[in-house]
Amino acid sequence: MPDTSTPAIHLGPEYDPALARGIEGGGGRLVPLDDAEAVVWSGGPDAFPDRLPDTVRWVQLPSAGIERWMAAGIVDHDRVWTSAAGAYAPSVAEHAVTLLLAGVRGLGEQVRATSWRKAEFDARVGTLRGATVAIIGAGGIGRAMIPLLGAFGADVLAVTRSGTSVPGAVETVAASRTGEIWSRADHFVIAAPATAETAHLVDAEVMARMKPTAWIVNIARGSLIDTDALVRALGDGTIGGAALDVTDPEPLPAGHPLWTLPNAIVTPHLANPSTGLRTLLADHVRANVERFAAGEPLLAVIGLERGY
Amino acid sequence: MPDTSTPAIHLGPEYDPALARGIEGGGGRLVPLDDAEAVVWSGGPDAFPDRLPDTVRWVQLPSAGIERWMAAGIVDHDRVWTSAAGAYAPSVAEHAVTLLLAGVRGLGEQVRATSWRKAEFDARVGTLRGATVAIIGAGGIGRAMIPLLGAFGADVLAVTRSGTSVPGAVETVAASRTGEIWSRADHFVIAAPATAETAHLVDAEVMARMKPTAWIVNIARGSLIDTDALVRALGDGTIGGAALDVTDPEPLPAGHPLWTLPNAIVTPHLANPSTGLRTLLADHVRANVERFAAGEPLLAVIGLERGY
Repeated sequence: MPDTSTPAIHLGPEYDPALARGIEGGGGRLVPLDDAEAVVWSGGPDAFPDRLPDTVRWVQLPSAGIERWMAAGIVDHDRVWTSAAGAYAPSVAEHAVTLLLAGVRGLGEQVRATSWRKAEFDARVGTLRGATVAIIGAGGIGRAMIPLLGAFGADVLAVTRSGTSVPGAVETVAASRTGEIWSRADHFVIAAPATAETAHLVDAEVMARMKPTAWIVNIARGSLIDTDALVRALGDGTIGGAALDVTDPEPLPAGHPLWTLPNAIVTPHLANPSTGLRTLLADHVRANVERFAAGEPLLAVIGLERGY
Repeated sequence: MPDTSTPAIHLGPEYDPALARGIEGGGGRLVPLDDAEAVVWSGGPDAFPDRLPDTVRWVQLPSAGIERWMAAGIVDHDRVWTSAAGAYAPSVAEHAVTLLLAGVRGLGEQVRATSWRKAEFDARVGTLRGATVAIIGAGGIGRAMIPLLGAFGADVLAVTRSGTSVPGAVETVAASRTGEIWSRADHFVIAAPATAETAHLVDAEVMARMKPTAWIVNIARGSLIDTDALVRALGDGTIGGAALDVTDPEPLPAGHPLWTLPNAIVTPHLANPSTGLRTLLADHVRANVERFAAGEPLLAVIGLERGY
């Protein structure tokens, strides 16, 4: 039977209206640290209390990456710690779909035009309706994209490490079979982590197998794409275009060809802008307070051994 | 009880694979004109048969506007005639949401940048998540937008002539009460017909009541916005921005300030590009063949008296 109490939660290091609404909206009440069963922390590790009361059974940290918290020795075995992993997925998914739509519908060259070039642009306007979009690395962000793409009438082909079926995708392929998808999908969203295995995952050979109308969106890390090969593929029409929120090198230097190629769109790592951070963290806090109150497993529990 | 036969349909003036798939996918079979119960016509009025067999009970025309067909005296009282009204709504809705996302997330200025201006752009990146989007003129296009906006977590405030509740909108307001919405909604999509009543619907006074972060998308007709007032509102930050697929004057002349204002996006009337026409018409044909086979009312039936 779930615990239906109203958990006593400390919000630190200072009051924040969005996070307070998240706590109260999730069924919690705000209390001083000494009375707390849980702590929601919106600051960095430096101001974190040296010692938490024994009554504190859960701490919610504000960042998705917790390297600094681990390095400071703050995360312990005495209670459950949760990060903000996944909290920012809705913003990144929105940005990725915006980039894909902008690319497929030709907005890159249209936005830069300074005269009415309707006849010239018309033939290059595509649609997501009926398209197959491959999401390479369908984790939290990729999964958040699926209902968005579905609303536009696109089918999703998901690639995950294990190949375990992703809900909402028409097909899920294991990462070891990624080679099969390059010629099958109409467009590609790169959302996989940067590892030795994924470096230059998209190279000249892979792009040669894509459809000449294919758009590539990258919201993961620049290193997953061979930038020089991409510039050549964009220039000679091997693919339709690329919309990149991350680049290699990053920041992309002034004068780089990606700034001016008509079929390239570059946004400067703004898929998760600071304007949205607090709101999305508040949603995450609300979900976790609801789970805490109900005695259910929390989201984004940190594994002390694995370090995230 | 529905008629479950396989209707005999003539496709003219020539074979088209997409339309043939639409007819057959809807349950029809292709026949010569003399054997036809229905005609699907993909050409203009000039090549239309002078006389149709008496067996033809329904004719599907390929365009949404049928002025030329009416002027040619082709549409008669002897059978049901349908237009393609509404068939192109999915493309226009996709374009409208693309423009709104591009605007709200700041893509206009980002796409035109030629260096990494992350810190400068970050504060101006918005989101549709939690936003209220007013659709002014929620007909077929507006209704097609509602599930798209919903997927991004936006609420829709619909404005229709009658004020009759629009499914999926959180609220529907009659056109006579449009004045109430300018200060309430976060963003605006103009989708109403161009009439004497809607000319300069969005003027200086209306924009002054909008939030300073509001984006206006226009996929209807340029005349609904007072262009000079819009240029001033964009320049002095009265509103967040404007993304326009239609302009006044149209085509927008080279050198017009809307081409270069950082918070303006202009696409040259490409919401319904020629690349998508045949596919969308085929979907419409399929839906109508299904209805014809089932003896149900057809979509976009032409009223000879009202002229559309």
